[in-house]
Amino acid sequence: METNQILEKFNQGSIRALGRAITIVENREKDSDYLLNELNKNTGKAHIIGFTGSPGAGKSSLIDSLVAYLRKNDIKVGIIAVDPSSPFTGGAILGDRIRMIQHSTDKGVFIRSMANRGRTGGLGIATKDAIKVLDAFGFDVIIIETVGAGQTEIDIVKTADTVAVVLNPEAGDDIQAFKAGIMEIADIFVINKADLPGAGRTRISIETSVHESKAKDDNWLTPVIMTSSFKTQGIDELWNKVREHYNHLNTSGELERRRFKNLNSEIIAILENKLKNYLELKLKENESLNIIQKAGEKQITSRIAADEIFKRL
Amino acid sequence: METNQILEKFNQGSIRALGRAITIVENREKDSDYLLNELNKNTGKAHIIGFTGSPGAGKSSLIDSLVAYLRKNDIKVGIIAVDPSSPFTGGAILGDRIRMIQHSTDKGVFIRSMANRGRTGGLGIATKDAIKVLDAFGFDVIIIETVGAGQTEIDIVKTADTVAVVLNPEAGDDIQAFKAGIMEIADIFVINKADLPGAGRTRISIETSVHESKAKDDNWLTPVIMTSSFKTQGIDELWNKVREHYNHLNTSGELERRRFKNLNSEIIAILENKLKNYLELKLKENESLNIIQKAGEKQITSRIAADEIFKRL
Repeated sequence: METNQILEKFNQGSIRALGRAITIVENREKDSDYLLNELNKNTGKAHIIGFTGSPGAGKSSLIDSLVAYLRKNDIKVGIIAVDPSSPFTGGAILGDRIRMIQHSTDKGVFIRSMANRGRTGGLGIATKDAIKVLDAFGFDVIIIETVGAGQTEIDIVKTADTVAVVLNPEAGDDIQAFKAGIMEIADIFVINKADLPGAGRTRISIETSVHESKAKDDNWLTPVIMTSSFKTQGIDELWNKVREHYNHLNTSGELERRRFKNLNSEIIAILENKLKNYLELKLKENESLNIIQKAGEKQITSRIAADEIFKRL
Repeated sequence: METNQILEKFNQGSIRALGRAITIVENREKDSDYLLNELNKNTGKAHIIGFTGSPGAGKSSLIDSLVAYLRKNDIKVGIIAVDPSSPFTGGAILGDRIRMIQHSTDKGVFIRSMANRGRTGGLGIATKDAIKVLDAFGFDVIIIETVGAGQTEIDIVKTADTVAVVLNPEAGDDIQAFKAGIMEIADIFVINKADLPGAGRTRISIETSVHESKAKDDNWLTPVIMTSSFKTQGIDELWNKVREHYNHLNTSGELERRRFKNLNSEIIAILENKLKNYLELKLKENESLNIIQKAGEKQITSRIAADEIFKRL
């Protein structure tokens, strides 16, 4: 199918065209920029929600329950599951995604996995492009799920409008360490598997930390919600809080601020990627190779070598 | 103390001057490049050994036992403990380091912690600079210990001459996932806490993976060693394997290849950092701000905005 045909079908609501469009932008196929340009004016309408948390926290099941809840209310949901770290991703995500098959014949739900394998350029950029495509397609809500909680994943998820951090009661001592990197990105804390022992204690521990920490947003007190995706307990409360947060973002002007900040980061990431490619080309030239050789022979330090190459860029 | 005085004392073997010199390069103080240049010709002699592994694998105790063993054999050891991820680093590493106090009055051992806090530029670059200072000081062996096993930590540790990956018998199911990212960086696997149940099974599982995976170095079969830092069991075998690997690197020419490859990566990292700083300045200029503004208003895509800015660089 040609790109214009894909666009036409895309605008008519074809799920197949949607999938194809994401592939085009994800793989940076030749019409990728054209496509993004065509879709650009239709973006910015969806509420983008990020879910992160330690492995095994039950994020996928929780999202599964949330999606079921949203579909009952006729809310259209696009989901992007991101796993940057593992080469085994395909399998791991597939395992999680099987639980989501209940939604797979529903045209109001679309699920896509993204991983790092074979990618040139950042996973973060590819994810943002995929979000734009889902947004332009007309999903009301876009969920970004990150499998694990590494730095790359946190960098990706924190660009969502609303970030939910999922924890477990059993996490115990780990929570302390875990909170370190994510306290500042959470808009909502979710204690999942809240039927397990220790849930109450975990809640108090997190609430205490919320009060003691510097707020991400001075006008929003990060709530702590108890859920159990097994019993679908707390899902309505989770959704209410997510919407409450979105309303807060809209009325306070914070949404615009966050999105502009994200746009900035996105443009910087694209530029850094471009510069990296340019650098790789430059480093293959004889002049650069000679300088590196000199550093190899310890005639100059690597700092000086870098300076010399930089001057020639 | 002036830098030349520091250098003089450094060359006389003053531990205090060593500590000061590392601080200068770590914080990129004004004489940092001068210092690195002066020390450059004395680097390249130490055997750099990286230790990585999942949190709780007992890396610090293991290194502690190894250092005690090396000191008995009058081998001088510099240690750099790296924790890029946690803002709580100071505390965490300090806890580990307390066990190392037994070496603290010994002039043949030097320990330094490095973290990300307040750092401009990469932790990887700072770590490499610190290694150079230790190398020039005359340590026979330099150990890089990474706390945790995130991508940044793996990137740092894999620049060592010899990389030891530390695992536990209890790791159980985690090993499968854990192996994914690190199979390709290990020169030696260490099953620590080998007195715990499951150690034999873990060994077989790893040995099988070693045989099934693509070798990092076709002429070196990654050995699996069982240690217990509690009983100091296996420490001599570990050291013998580490030295055997070093001899292999030397005789096969692999050492030179690896170090040249690392030098390349280091220069690229320094250049990327320079470009990033340059970019940040450029983005503050009105011309760039206008372009970003246009993207914010969806007149153009972020890709096009990045292109426009790139053209003006």
